[in-house]
Amino acid sequence: MSSDNNTTDTTLVALLHGHDQPGLVAKTSGWIYENGGNILHADQHRDMQAEIFFQRIEWTATAKGLASDGSLFRRFAESLGMNVHVADASHRTRVAIFVSKFDHCFHDLVLRWKSGDYPCDIIAVVSNHRDLEPAAKGYGLPYYHIPVTAGAKAAAESAQLDLMAKLGVELVIMARYMQVLSADFLGKAAFPVINIHHSFLPAFAGGKPYHQAHTRGVKLIGATAHYATPVLDDGPIIQQDVARVTHRHSVGDLIRKGRDLEKIVLAQAVRWHLDHRVLIYGNKTVVFD
Amino acid sequence: MSSDNNTTDTTLVALLHGHDQPGLVAKTSGWIYENGGNILHADQHRDMQAEIFFQRIEWTATAKGLASDGSLFRRFAESLGMNVHVADASHRTRVAIFVSKFDHCFHDLVLRWKSGDYPCDIIAVVSNHRDLEPAAKGYGLPYYHIPVTAGAKAAAESAQLDLMAKLGVELVIMARYMQVLSADFLGKAAFPVINIHHSFLPAFAGGKPYHQAHTRGVKLIGATAHYATPVLDDGPIIQQDVARVTHRHSVGDLIRKGRDLEKIVLAQAVRWHLDHRVLIYGNKTVVFD
Amino acid sequence: MSSDNNTTDTTLVALLHGHDQPGLVAKTSGWIYENGGNILHADQHRDMQAEIFFQRIEWTATAKGLASDGSLFRRFAESLGMNVHVADASHRTRVAIFVSKFDHCFHDLVLRWKSGDYPCDIIAVVSNHRDLEPAAKGYGLPYYHIPVTAGAKAAAESAQLDLMAKLGVELVIMARYMQVLSADFLGKAAFPVINIHHSFLPAFAGGKPYHQAHTRGVKLIGATAHYATPVLDDGPIIQQDVARVTHRHSVGDLIRKGRDLEKIVLAQAVRWHLDHRVLIYGNKTVVFD
Amino acid sequence: MSSDNNTTDTTLVALLHGHDQPGLVAKTSGWIYENGGNILHADQHRDMQAEIFFQRIEWTATAKGLASDGSLFRRFAESLGMNVHVADASHRTRVAIFVSKFDHCFHDLVLRWKSGDYPCDIIAVVSNHRDLEPAAKGYGLPYYHIPVTAGAKAAAESAQLDLMAKLGVELVIMARYMQVLSADFLGKAAFPVINIHHSFLPAFAGGKPYHQAHTRGVKLIGATAHYATPVLDDGPIIQQDVARVTHRHSVGDLIRKGRDLEKIVLAQAVRWHLDHRVLIYGNKTVVFD
Repeated sequence: MSSDNNTTDTTLVALLHGHDQPGLVAKTSGWIYENGGNILHADQHRDMQAEIFFQRIEWTATAKGLASDGSLFRRFAESLGMNVHVADASHRTRVAIFVSKFDHCFHDLVLRWKSGDYPCDIIAVVSNHRDLEPAAKGYGLPYYHIPVTAGAKAAAESAQLDLMAKLGVELVIMARYMQVLSADFLGKAAFPVINIHHSFLPAFAGGKPYHQAHTRGVKLIGATAHYATPVLDDGPIIQQDVARVTHRHSVGDLIRKGRDLEKIVLAQAVRWHLDHRVLIYGNKTVVFD
Repeated sequence: MSSDNNTTDTTLVALLHGHDQPGLVAKTSGWIYENGGNILHADQHRDMQAEIFFQRIEWTATAKGLASDGSLFRRFAESLGMNVHVADASHRTRVAIFVSKFDHCFHDLVLRWKSGDYPCDIIAVVSNHRDLEPAAKGYGLPYYHIPVTAGAKAAAESAQLDLMAKLGVELVIMARYMQVLSADFLGKAAFPVINIHHSFLPAFAGGKPYHQAHTRGVKLIGATAHYATPVLDDGPIIQQDVARVTHRHSVGDLIRKGRDLEKIVLAQAVRWHLDHRVLIYGNKTVVFD
Repeated sequence: MSSDNNTTDTTLVALLHGHDQPGLVAKTSGWIYENGGNILHADQHRDMQAEIFFQRIEWTATAKGLASDGSLFRRFAESLGMNVHVADASHRTRVAIFVSKFDHCFHDLVLRWKSGDYPCDIIAVVSNHRDLEPAAKGYGLPYYHIPVTAGAKAAAESAQLDLMAKLGVELVIMARYMQVLSADFLGKAAFPVINIHHSFLPAFAGGKPYHQAHTRGVKLIGATAHYATPVLDDGPIIQQDVARVTHRHSVGDLIRKGRDLEKIVLAQAVRWHLDHRVLIYGNKTVVFD
Repeated sequence: MSSDNNTTDTTLVALLHGHDQPGLVAKTSGWIYENGGNILHADQHRDMQAEIFFQRIEWTATAKGLASDGSLFRRFAESLGMNVHVADASHRTRVAIFVSKFDHCFHDLVLRWKSGDYPCDIIAVVSNHRDLEPAAKGYGLPYYHIPVTAGAKAAAESAQLDLMAKLGVELVIMARYMQVLSADFLGKAAFPVINIHHSFLPAFAGGKPYHQAHTRGVKLIGATAHYATPVLDDGPIIQQDVARVTHRHSVGDLIRKGRDLEKIVLAQAVRWHLDHRVLIYGNKTVVFD
């Protein structure tokens, strides 16, 4: 959240939205410029019907300028009636990955991270099974086995929340984690949760979407990355994609082809989130890509 | 359905399916070859789980050979336990297009047909409104205005069915016809009906799908061409496609972008149907493209 | 480009680019706001490597405010060292469509225009053949037959330029016009020219691109809309798209499938141009979509 | 190549092509059926213009039947004038992966293989650098470091060929191996070589294709998997795909986005090759997918 009192440059990103009014672009960019900041990117969107203004603005400032202090900009934007979130672009988000037995999204995320694609620290792999423990350790990642047994889900979620709090986790990624997180868990979570669902939502919500798709005879299968909310598979959608299938494809083929979709869709959603490009508004997202 | 007793070549297409058994490819291709036919294309598919065999086979035969008589091949295939449909490739399907006020799919289909893309005759444009009458007449197409008024839908459908029977219609295309055809109409219809739905089914079935998509915040919109069945928007899917949208797109933009999807998806489905490439099986299709 | 002295609102669009410098977003948006304009959209892009700043900014202003006068904003932006183009959003661009014998792009553009999709006036259809004259007249469009014969191309181009000047044409669209416009023509033209090339440029420039694609055995075919420049098929690319093909597709199939690509790619490029979303920079475009 | 004298079933796949003639489908399927085989899949294609017949046919046979002997079918097909390749579907192709320093395609292929997706044995990782040695050893794969130094390329290639021969390699995959294999190497190689080129060929052949693409200002970038031939980037194309880019993407972004394309396109090409779905004909491929 910015602004140590040193002499290096700071790069800040603000996401803001609120009731539209004349002059907002001029006011926010003017404040930053007058206070010693240099705007790198500024993207605006207006929902004409709802009269809402959305903005992502990214700037650098020398340590001495007021524009290098995120809390000052936040206060300014709030004085304009905006909801605002400011982040220091150099901060590395603390991420926990939740997995079960499927490993494709897990390997994909970790390899992207290891190649330097993601400005985050993966600080924990959490699983209800032991299957991916060797793979996680091979990558040098701490592995936390928290079984989820019938009748003891609440206890498991409580242990997960304690662990997240202790580790200071700022983002949980469900990389084909095969447990539904309860409304209670999500209500208490101090961090957003990104999930990958293996269908083109809202089609085929719930269990076994590839089987559902095969039964219905669709000609495209999909994957959807979204923020988890108490209503299953109903949270704000971040990214979706599809792949073509034909009658020649069995359910097994759909599952295999779907793995590539799941990897790419989840990877894009995680990137946008880490780059502070996703603004949640109601049950939808504005993605400044 | 073939086989005049003249001396020119005949090209026949058979679509067949039934319980799988060894030797089916050899038997059907052998029968045709032995009876003077030359196979142009033969595509097979096996549903391994359901143990069903599907085949599309196209061949030419001189007028004298037994293979030039579609009814003989049909009888042979039935003796193997197959359901079979045989068509003369030179027959031009008699088509009626149902429209309301939207004209984009209508113009698109007619222009493709006029440019020689479709082996069919468009013999009627049927509408519950008068709006497209000048356009239809401009193309030289007979226009039948059959209003559908509250409380008198049954009478209108009866008039439509009488007209279809009188004209010998073999395919009805609903080119954004904004009335639901009743189960009664579809039960009595002696022809298949292809509909274009402006969403990626099964997502957003029913009315105003672009509004539904905008509300849900999906990142892709779609269109689906399917055979109409008594259950609304639930018939066998022939073709689907999607286009990317963002938060920048209003409902109006989705409608505009969707028009291109609707045109292309419907045009492909119609082409495949006219080329005898679509085999309906249960509530799904096998498309031999 | 704007600013009659009446009392209605004016909506202006400015496209500007120039050497990057701190405060540009603040300065342009500040000037508009202080002079009575309300910014509807403002999109910026920085080419970090070349240190160039690009902006599209759209605003409304009451007739009395200085921000309603495009020439005043232009002068202000020029004082910042920017190249700038300002347009009145309510102005309807005067368009001529050049065609030969293929009619698919022609019909597609005209039908989109008739349905209200394009803020332009199509004031002329120009052709080296008579084939599309009835179609143009059916739409109520003036048709100008200017034959291009061997050895007399210069005279034909001279006649075309005279006609364009007389009609006050502001955009020429080559809708599969099968003549190469000479460097001389393009040098003298006071208007941009958008062309649709039936390949994924720079692959398969020049003649018969679908034949070239078939010979090379590519798995995707493409289409490219670009501004025409004296170097054939080398101008700034506005939009491109591709479609999948297989060994089953003959050259004829590629041509047929390509028609849909050509229509959609050209239609998008034309829309963006008419909405003042395309900024040409060097031999490339910045498309603010 | 099949047919031990035991009692288990054999599954064989034949790829054949040759001058078209009546009855080919009937003859090949008839021979298999009469000799105790059960056809699982049979796909045909006719190049109407060149009058060539292509077929992929897959069948199972009990060990005793003549149809379980691939060499007998081959002789039969040759008697019909066909070029034919027969493979035992249970045979695991012996694969060597060539790499340099980029690791994304390498990890992707190995992880797919470890998850059981590929019917092959990866028996060697060959590199001109040591960078990927730890990763290869982490997967338990033998790593062969064969440096390629200026002036000693021929010696390095000779060592590579010796190694391939000693290991009985049947397929080499260049997973972003950054050396051009010489015509001499390819001429002596007893195995096919699949390469991934990071552009939509034939656009941007040669070095630094993403830089070329950025300079040209294309709106889509691509990747192409092809068989390596003595002419650089000119071999038969197996698979291609593209991704959309805008002016916002730097060369670095193209490289990053391109990695996903490269992985998926190469992975599909390798799968089809291993499943005996790719028939090379002239400088093109017929892919029976």
